[in-house]
Amino acid sequence: MPGTVDFWFDFASTYSYPAAMRVAALAEAAAVRVRFRPFLLGPIFKAQGWTTSPFNLYPAKGNHMWRDLERLCADLSLPFRRPEPFPQNSLLAARVGIAALDHGWGEDFCRALFRAQFGDGIRIDDAVSIADVLAGLRVEPEPVLTAAQSDAIKARLRTQTDEAQRLGLFGAPSFTTADGELFWGNDRLEQALRWAKKANGE
Amino acid sequence: MPGTVDFWFDFASTYSYPAAMRVAALAEAAAVRVRFRPFLLGPIFKAQGWTTSPFNLYPAKGNHMWRDLERLCADLSLPFRRPEPFPQNSLLAARVGIAALDHGWGEDFCRALFRAQFGDGIRIDDAVSIADVLAGLRVEPEPVLTAAQSDAIKARLRTQTDEAQRLGLFGAPSFTTADGELFWGNDRLEQALRWAKKANGE
Repeated sequence: MPGTVDFWFDFASTYSYPAAMRVAALAEAAAVRVRFRPFLLGPIFKAQGWTTSPFNLYPAKGNHMWRDLERLCADLSLPFRRPEPFPQNSLLAARVGIAALDHGWGEDFCRALFRAQFGDGIRIDDAVSIADVLAGLRVEPEPVLTAAQSDAIKARLRTQTDEAQRLGLFGAPSFTTADGELFWGNDRLEQALRWAKKANGE
Repeated sequence: MPGTVDFWFDFASTYSYPAAMRVAALAEAAAVRVRFRPFLLGPIFKAQGWTTSPFNLYPAKGNHMWRDLERLCADLSLPFRRPEPFPQNSLLAARVGIAALDHGWGEDFCRALFRAQFGDGIRIDDAVSIADVLAGLRVEPEPVLTAAQSDAIKARLRTQTDEAQRLGLFGAPSFTTADGELFWGNDRLEQALRWAKKANGE
């Protein structure tokens, strides 16, 4: 039985992009199972009194973040473009993500949508852009977009966001393990995988 | 001519502790020169509208930080105790740090004071504790404490804090390079050293 790490992300979150692109290969190398868990940061930021991303609220922090992400993506050979506006409204993307992850191509969709936004500057609040990303994966967009707007998927996203808040998440990406550890940030991905492996007695 | 990294820290800053303990060996391995630059986060936090550490202002973030630091110090085999109160008033420590760094044992003092606070739970706002740390390094405390309270040292700390703010620093530890790059956080120490080495044409 492999250990498991839950990978929590918001499609609008900058550091969730490199994490999403890195997690599968690193988890495979560590023999740890990863569950992709999209959620919404908006309600969690709101509970902390923030009306937008802290990177917008604190300009010095925001300036560093954009430069840091640029350097980070260069190191990882990932394309990078600063999204406009930032943050994007990720509600539709998160719903489509939940619907997509019921299928074998769900993680590919998540990676493709991150790359479209942060690599190609595509807006993710737009059903047409999301349909293009689905079509690029040879998935028929219409049924997925319809499922994404169903009451069942809407409720699952709300439940998932509530769970994130209950687990103490305050930012994205975050990683949680079955034994209750929380790791925040792309920088903690490797440590979370090591933890899950060790907790599993390996 | 080796590349140079400026290592900016506040003695009360949690993640400045592992950075201070790691930086010398890593810099030596990278053949990069490091300058220790104590400054005060207080005025910089104040400019962002914060009256205390963001780890106190945002409890979910604070809870993660303490656990993260515990895991991080365990990985590095560094002792760790949560300081009470947090953050400590680091004004006297920063002044002594500036005075100490005029001497060959200055970096040893910085490491010893970080270890006293985060390893042994010693308060750093107290001249007696700081004198003990100096004595532990076989340095006579009185002349150093007197120098630390001189107008010249007070002015140098103000100038250093102003420079930190001008460089765009918003937290500690931070690392800056001669070509204007800013790296924030203990997690970016290795990257800053690589940058300084590369910028230097090595």
